[in-house]
Amino acid sequence: MQKTDGMFYAPKGLKRAVVNRGEFAIAAVALDHGHIYGMCNGLLEAGATLKWVYDPDPHKVAAFLQRFPEAKPAENEQIILQDDEVQLVAGAAIPSERCALGLRAIAHGKDYFTDKAPVTTLEQLELARRATANTGRKYMVYYSERLHVESAIYAEQLIRDDAIGRVIQVIGLGPHRLNAASRPEWFYSRQHTGGILCDLGSHQIEQFLTYAGCQDAQVLHSKVANYHHKEHPGLEDFGDATLLGDNGANHYFRVDWFTPDGLSTWGDGRTVILGTKGYIELRKYTDIARAQEGDHLYLVDHSGEHLLKLSGQVGYPFFGQLILDCLNRTENAMTQAHAFKAAELSLLAQQHAIRIE
Amino acid sequence: MQKTDGMFYAPKGLKRAVVNRGEFAIAAVALDHGHIYGMCNGLLEAGATLKWVYDPDPHKVAAFLQRFPEAKPAENEQIILQDDEVQLVAGAAIPSERCALGLRAIAHGKDYFTDKAPVTTLEQLELARRATANTGRKYMVYYSERLHVESAIYAEQLIRDDAIGRVIQVIGLGPHRLNAASRPEWFYSRQHTGGILCDLGSHQIEQFLTYAGCQDAQVLHSKVANYHHKEHPGLEDFGDATLLGDNGANHYFRVDWFTPDGLSTWGDGRTVILGTKGYIELRKYTDIARAQEGDHLYLVDHSGEHLLKLSGQVGYPFFGQLILDCLNRTENAMTQAHAFKAAELSLLAQQHAIRIE
Repeated sequence: MQKTDGMFYAPKGLKRAVVNRGEFAIAAVALDHGHIYGMCNGLLEAGATLKWVYDPDPHKVAAFLQRFPEAKPAENEQIILQDDEVQLVAGAAIPSERCALGLRAIAHGKDYFTDKAPVTTLEQLELARRATANTGRKYMVYYSERLHVESAIYAEQLIRDDAIGRVIQVIGLGPHRLNAASRPEWFYSRQHTGGILCDLGSHQIEQFLTYAGCQDAQVLHSKVANYHHKEHPGLEDFGDATLLGDNGANHYFRVDWFTPDGLSTWGDGRTVILGTKGYIELRKYTDIARAQEGDHLYLVDHSGEHLLKLSGQVGYPFFGQLILDCLNRTENAMTQAHAFKAAELSLLAQQHAIRIE
Repeated sequence: MQKTDGMFYAPKGLKRAVVNRGEFAIAAVALDHGHIYGMCNGLLEAGATLKWVYDPDPHKVAAFLQRFPEAKPAENEQIILQDDEVQLVAGAAIPSERCALGLRAIAHGKDYFTDKAPVTTLEQLELARRATANTGRKYMVYYSERLHVESAIYAEQLIRDDAIGRVIQVIGLGPHRLNAASRPEWFYSRQHTGGILCDLGSHQIEQFLTYAGCQDAQVLHSKVANYHHKEHPGLEDFGDATLLGDNGANHYFRVDWFTPDGLSTWGDGRTVILGTKGYIELRKYTDIARAQEGDHLYLVDHSGEHLLKLSGQVGYPFFGQLILDCLNRTENAMTQAHAFKAAELSLLAQQHAIRIE
């Protein structure tokens, strides 16, 4: 894995197309976050056809076309929204703009697939919920730290197969490399990002809801801080929270911008899932000082300690499921309620956070 | 490392005697918890002379004498308390009785060294604080998960040497094997143990105060549960807490009784110390699916990812320092204020804990 900052993390999976060429057309609109590459990659590997790309910044479009030459640059967003062939709009706008883009896409009869966090305020969330309820269109979210991580996908299967019994706690650590100089201005604006718990925290809460099998949860405590980057007063470089799920399972996560320069990748992401009969530890992107490749899953159960090296072994079923969900109006990839619940809880964690000075 | 339940965890360190034979006499009183073996081991390796042992249960005394034949069994506690040669009483009583024993020892002019948790109520803590303040005697605590773990000792040195910059967070995971059948009755009584945050949590908070360099802290949130052992209503099998130190550093820890049967040792204890320039992860007792030996220290800093295998490399300086502190009336091993502060905060975490049903 390359030593990047995670912005352009776009893992290549097993290509398992669920549709034929031309059967599912998508467009990429708003290229503010590099996650758009991972989002398009995943959909293309599952058989989608990338018809259009649009961003007001021609440099971003040019870079995108280098990677996805099949896309046609659109002169404006309207061309895409008016194109009846386009079934889904994929976007990685500035977080505070993601909802507005989604509402436009949905108003034009498209499904929407946005980078996380999908919204930055509870008001936006209410609008998004209403739009999907009224139209039946989808407002899906690229929670990449589960959906685009093979060990994270496999963990779900292990839990389903009762490998660790009842899940009683999920701990998530989500450190990220700051790469301060490479960040756009909006990155340092709390209003544009929604804050660290809204942004990075949404990944974590989504994983908790998934692994613990919760429909809902309560934020018990959360905090944020700017410990070491006073030159960027709008940045929160640390955040954490603990939640209680509706089935009694609990959650702790920490997110931060403190990945040291010497780490071989952008972040030492970990997930520890504690069950009544065993536990799972995911070392998602690296196994420090042991292996630079990602997707090491450690399982300790009644029979022993097991290391499963899952890189290239599992694939990313989300993308094909999402395409089929759009075509068949099903919810196998992810329910709308789940996508929004993770966002809601991360907004509440952010809103109620104690700020450490 | 043997697959034990941790009760009899008594690591052997480098023998570095700080006194000659006979210069520092100790007695072991109250053998309810197997930690007394580790406590005596550590002191003997540092040069102490084990003069007496006393427990009302002759089976416990007989087992102790097997391991420490040099000790003389006393017929009652008074013989020990009246012996002017005895400078320190080491005890691992039932937690709720530890304070009373300490007060008796101190009243007879002895220093006291108890297994953690040192007290189970704030009232006991107040009595212990008053007794030490009035007499100048010591009420020291065997916080074994730092003091008797070589990687944990070495982490302090790395922090002191500025290897990771300013410490902003400490995360501790303290899972333990239940071994339900082997436990005495008091183990299942909340009143006798003080609860999981008081008991196992005190180790964790003591590490936080040490690594983050805090004199004091505030408990922000804590919770306890009995998730899976309803047959023992007095047991808390899960607890966690988050604290804010007086210097702004924060702490999260989880303790539990869910070590799976297949783990090679009694618990996969971890400590993650996040600094502004790097982080340290301690895999204290095993490195799951990689190595059964303990004391693996992982350090990620600006220069790279480093694995330090520290078993047998560091020793346990606490015990020699404690002996010298008793002889010289210094506080190099641990200050009295620190020993009590860790206990106080774990009692407060316990007292304010949300109970998950």
